[in-house]
Amino acid sequence: MRYPKPFQNLIAHFSALPSVGPKMAERIVLHLFKQEHERLLSFAESLEALQDLSLCTRCFHIAEGPLCDVCSDPKRDPSVLCVVEEPMDVIAIERSGGYQGLYHVLGGVMRTGQGDDPSLRIPELLSRIATEDVKEVILALNPTTEGDLTTLYLRKKLEPLGVTVSRPARGLSTGGDIEYADEATLTSALRNREKLG
Amino acid sequence: MRYPKPFQNLIAHFSALPSVGPKMAERIVLHLFKQEHERLLSFAESLEALQDLSLCTRCFHIAEGPLCDVCSDPKRDPSVLCVVEEPMDVIAIERSGGYQGLYHVLGGVMRTGQGDDPSLRIPELLSRIATEDVKEVILALNPTTEGDLTTLYLRKKLEPLGVTVSRPARGLSTGGDIEYADEATLTSALRNREKLG
Repeated sequence: MRYPKPFQNLIAHFSALPSVGPKMAERIVLHLFKQEHERLLSFAESLEALQDLSLCTRCFHIAEGPLCDVCSDPKRDPSVLCVVEEPMDVIAIERSGGYQGLYHVLGGVMRTGQGDDPSLRIPELLSRIATEDVKEVILALNPTTEGDLTTLYLRKKLEPLGVTVSRPARGLSTGGDIEYADEATLTSALRNREKLG
Repeated sequence: MRYPKPFQNLIAHFSALPSVGPKMAERIVLHLFKQEHERLLSFAESLEALQDLSLCTRCFHIAEGPLCDVCSDPKRDPSVLCVVEEPMDVIAIERSGGYQGLYHVLGGVMRTGQGDDPSLRIPELLSRIATEDVKEVILALNPTTEGDLTTLYLRKKLEPLGVTVSRPARGLSTGGDIEYADEATLTSALRNREKLG
């Protein structure tokens, strides 16, 4: 004997999610089964509502209309463009509150040895530089091998277009431990040391 | 700026699930956002379909009708009752294929120092013993302090009713390591050693 069909279907849906194994999915569905019907309905409705969202036609962040909240805000500085991998990165930078420019969500990074990835929005980025009044591009990709490779690639493409290209500083994390910082981070942090006073 | 409202709602629903933190919920919703609409709809429908399931009126396992698959199977032996904490335990025992009796899902175990928990289906268990032709009750609760406490409590309630009360053997796990077995398990395994040949 196994679980009834609707139960099995839901376990399969949860198991397909990132970082959710079959045992965890089973536990989640059992948890949901004990919930009130209204909560289940509201969960199901929220899932369906995800369909009404789309990608911003300008920067490819998640949007409720044709433009996302950042692109439709007239107070943002259109001369600075921050290139990120995923919408989650936009949210993280927005949470920090320290950035006033616009974004461009690349949709990932280049994989080594795979050549040009057509799913990356590099042509759209170059077309924005050509048509919008962009002066600086900040390449805020994840500090991984692939991220650094993509940063290098984009830098070569962007510099001939006459824009300043930068990337976020590498250094110690606030609240972190020098003892546990990796060698590359420590080297960057010491080389790019900030003058006090 | 934060995520659009439907996105936030869904993150809240996922964050409320067991073992899912807010960051993981964010990642899951982003993953779902990239899925095809049909997949999302099917996920939402599976969630709603959970409402059509109920608890077996006899043993409290998950059921599509009034009785679960085990209780409605005439080939099962109604003289043996296996008491478990949750429906997941029924599924685990059924998967092992070695049990032919019926079940009783208790709905949890007693918490130390809280007295009788009205949510546990102990009265329903006693009433089954009184009305059905039960000869043996296997108390297959989790081998935890609370599980053992509940086993002790149920044993005292059941033995005067003239049924044999047992619990699954404690011993080494197949494929396990003696080196890593805890002291209580090793003591049980040695005391209840099986004669070979």
